[in-house]
Amino acid sequence: MTINPDIYSELSDHIKPSPIRALMPFIRQPGVISFAGGLPAPETFPVKQIQEITHNILEEEPGSALQYGPTTGDPRLRQAVADRLSKKMGVDIEMDQVIITTGSQQALFLAAMIHVNRGESVGVESPTFTGGLSAFDPFYPNFVPFEMDQDGIKTDQVEAWFAAGNSLKILYTIPDFQNPTGVTLSLERRKHLVELAKKHNFIIIEDAPYTDLRYSGEAVQSVYSLDDSGHTYYCGSFSKIFSPIRLGWLVAPKSVIDRLNVAKQPVDTCSPMLTQALVYYFLTQNYLEPQIEKITAFYKARRDVMLKVLDEVMPEGVTWTRPEGGMFVWITVPEHVDVQALFHKAIENKVAFVTGSAFFIEGAAKQNTLRVNFVSENGEQIEEGIKRLAQSLKEML
Amino acid sequence: MTINPDIYSELSDHIKPSPIRALMPFIRQPGVISFAGGLPAPETFPVKQIQEITHNILEEEPGSALQYGPTTGDPRLRQAVADRLSKKMGVDIEMDQVIITTGSQQALFLAAMIHVNRGESVGVESPTFTGGLSAFDPFYPNFVPFEMDQDGIKTDQVEAWFAAGNSLKILYTIPDFQNPTGVTLSLERRKHLVELAKKHNFIIIEDAPYTDLRYSGEAVQSVYSLDDSGHTYYCGSFSKIFSPIRLGWLVAPKSVIDRLNVAKQPVDTCSPMLTQALVYYFLTQNYLEPQIEKITAFYKARRDVMLKVLDEVMPEGVTWTRPEGGMFVWITVPEHVDVQALFHKAIENKVAFVTGSAFFIEGAAKQNTLRVNFVSENGEQIEEGIKRLAQSLKEML
Repeated sequence: MTINPDIYSELSDHIKPSPIRALMPFIRQPGVISFAGGLPAPETFPVKQIQEITHNILEEEPGSALQYGPTTGDPRLRQAVADRLSKKMGVDIEMDQVIITTGSQQALFLAAMIHVNRGESVGVESPTFTGGLSAFDPFYPNFVPFEMDQDGIKTDQVEAWFAAGNSLKILYTIPDFQNPTGVTLSLERRKHLVELAKKHNFIIIEDAPYTDLRYSGEAVQSVYSLDDSGHTYYCGSFSKIFSPIRLGWLVAPKSVIDRLNVAKQPVDTCSPMLTQALVYYFLTQNYLEPQIEKITAFYKARRDVMLKVLDEVMPEGVTWTRPEGGMFVWITVPEHVDVQALFHKAIENKVAFVTGSAFFIEGAAKQNTLRVNFVSENGEQIEEGIKRLAQSLKEML
Repeated sequence: MTINPDIYSELSDHIKPSPIRALMPFIRQPGVISFAGGLPAPETFPVKQIQEITHNILEEEPGSALQYGPTTGDPRLRQAVADRLSKKMGVDIEMDQVIITTGSQQALFLAAMIHVNRGESVGVESPTFTGGLSAFDPFYPNFVPFEMDQDGIKTDQVEAWFAAGNSLKILYTIPDFQNPTGVTLSLERRKHLVELAKKHNFIIIEDAPYTDLRYSGEAVQSVYSLDDSGHTYYCGSFSKIFSPIRLGWLVAPKSVIDRLNVAKQPVDTCSPMLTQALVYYFLTQNYLEPQIEKITAFYKARRDVMLKVLDEVMPEGVTWTRPEGGMFVWITVPEHVDVQALFHKAIENKVAFVTGSAFFIEGAAKQNTLRVNFVSENGEQIEEGIKRLAQSLKEML
């Protein structure tokens, strides 16, 4: 029953498992308070409405809801997404500019598939979402990391990249409450990015899974709405505002959607029609906006607890971001602290986080960083967990 | 709003849309009886049971059913699939030899992803399932077509391929009621294939979406169960025996599943937990086997009508397969008939099929062939549709 290792492709040897999933065996221990995951809080799932809608779908349209569907998605859901985003962003988005994908992870994968040739440069925030890196990685890009500060990606570094004679195929950004830093890109820098994309003809992929989860401050215009040139694609997900039932979307010029359609056919033919119908009715029965209000109130309370406890218990020399939304706080510890060792110390003390190095491309890592999720655990656990983390740090200092 | 065409990858230019989907605008006309699709009959969907199970899942386990899950699938469903297949095939399959995929289309795509390097040879039945070809195509294989006869793929041609000094990375086969021909691979040839795979160290991908849909004759042992060397992977789908809610599986040695797990992470993170829980309960509440009995009775009647009417009305010189299961009959018309022209003549006469050339790799097509689906239309429509097809043919002869 042994297989010759030569049977695997170069690609299979190239791609790496999620570094976060590798931490899971340590994290899943009894009594561990986990700030490590990226999961939304299940208490927020709109179960009753899902039950009602699913029942109705199976009464009224089982033949289509349980059947194969178009690769680009249920046309009704595409239209509903186009309508909602048009209204929210103050731009005109047509149905044929929207593709529905099996999670926004797939939107990123398909975009990489139709654009990235081996060795072409893909700019990324440093640090960034590991799933974003993994979506591009199968196409062997040259990842170009651009640093972040409290206003998001440093666009002067992007400008300098071009000034030095380089090019970019794609720049991947999460402008609102970025994963992992929680930072929001400033309006000024958004405008700068669009200007650079027009001048140097690269694509901006604006990933917006957290955009609706704002707890304080003012919404910033999307990069998409600032770009009248078609260089920006806008993708998002129902995972954080509804449930991770594996539905996302990407908005782009129609010609790009046609390409994504062809790319999705070999990957999974189409996304499930049942879950698409479910989200379609959730949107058009006007359940989504009240649901977002409910989630934001719920998560805001947890964020507030976490920031308050961090202020109270963290030792000198430790700093962190103060996100206005999303799910994550990014913590920077003194440079001499070994965060891998801190992770194991913290597990001993029954609290878990993700080591920051997981979110950087190789060689660019700021080792003295870590990510904590503030939505998965309740207020009491957040308070206790952050105290344990502070205690672990003090034992290391 | 124009995009520079240089922005697309070589891969995006390489992959082609489904040739069947290109026929759809012609087929979707009022009054057209369509034998073109590959869709199961929605009358067979077990709607009441789906309603009951979904309700219970949302009552009892909404927090996990609506959450992210493991990339390899819900462990309970993996176990249930392993148990069912172990029993059916008389072999011992462990849970960790099973991955759940977003339709079996994705199982094929992921298998291609972890195995096929550019230019490596992938053997295919000629003709074969277009989705199979499309799953491999993004990895730039050298497709090697092997002819079919009434006993399936001609394994002597496979043997000759190696005798001439060539190699194969993968051989892709649909041994039971093949799409598009309806033909079943003989036991003798299955054994021959396994012997060749062991000798020449290639992988057999046995695609079995129709295997449970047998209407007459005796079941033939799976290729998988004939192979004790781990060279055969077995994939299947819930689409044809339950509903196309986009869930399939692949069975392979554990080391291969580990590779597929890493390959699936960038593609869509995980398949929906809700639909996986639904299928899990459908299996473990013992609904599946009675459902298969119901579907096979339903489809058998339609197959019988189609074969009877073909016998009655087809002009001399036309031949067709007599499938013992599945969904398709393969028709061969006299060589001088232009099947593209026949397609348009048939549409005028309000009946549709798929031109056979769609199922061959470029250059290998037998142009005088066509595929008809016998499960989508009811008996009366089948009778009328086949009469219209025969009439169209007579007008061409």
